[in-house]
Amino acid sequence: MSERTDVLIGRKPTMNYVLACITLFHGGASEISVKARGRAISRAVDVVEVCRRRFLPNVKVKQIDIGTEQLAPFEEGGSPTNVSTIEIHLAE
Amino acid sequence: MSERTDVLIGRKPTMNYVLACITLFHGGASEISVKARGRAISRAVDVVEVCRRRFLPNVKVKQIDIGTEQLAPFEEGGSPTNVSTIEIHLAE
Repeated sequence: MSERTDVLIGRKPTMNYVLACITLFHGGASEISVKARGRAISRAVDVVEVCRRRFLPNVKVKQIDIGTEQLAPFEEGGSPTNVSTIEIHLAE
Repeated sequence: MSERTDVLIGRKPTMNYVLACITLFHGGASEISVKARGRAISRAVDVVEVCRRRFLPNVKVKQIDIGTEQLAPFEEGGSPTNVSTIEIHLAE
């Protein structure tokens, strides 16, 4: 199968996202993008490393992209905030 | 010049590391590795994004590597801790 799926990393414990990745690969996905922004970026790397090393030894990191997203200002007249993003592409 | 240099990201403010990168490139380095582990990984991505977008538009992200480092246990008989790492290679 060539299904492609995103896992968006937030504030939940790392293992929740690891489980999500495992479920996707076992469900037939051949490629997954692990995405995060801001402080969740470190957790995204943790998720990928735990997946690769402990549960999915056949999964490889295909590509890693970083970027910046501009968030709308909190209050009217405020300046927009920049937030860093990461996308880690995994393939079996 | 083909000098290659590392910038290790810790807990200082992002702009300190941005300044370090700018200084290295202006000093003649053609390639820099921005390295971080654990929670500093998000800051490493911030540093690279601020450098690229605001100060060094000619600098490109050449490669990004992620990995795991094993730290020795805090106390005797304890189990070792794993910590995620990132290395972002920048080139002008």
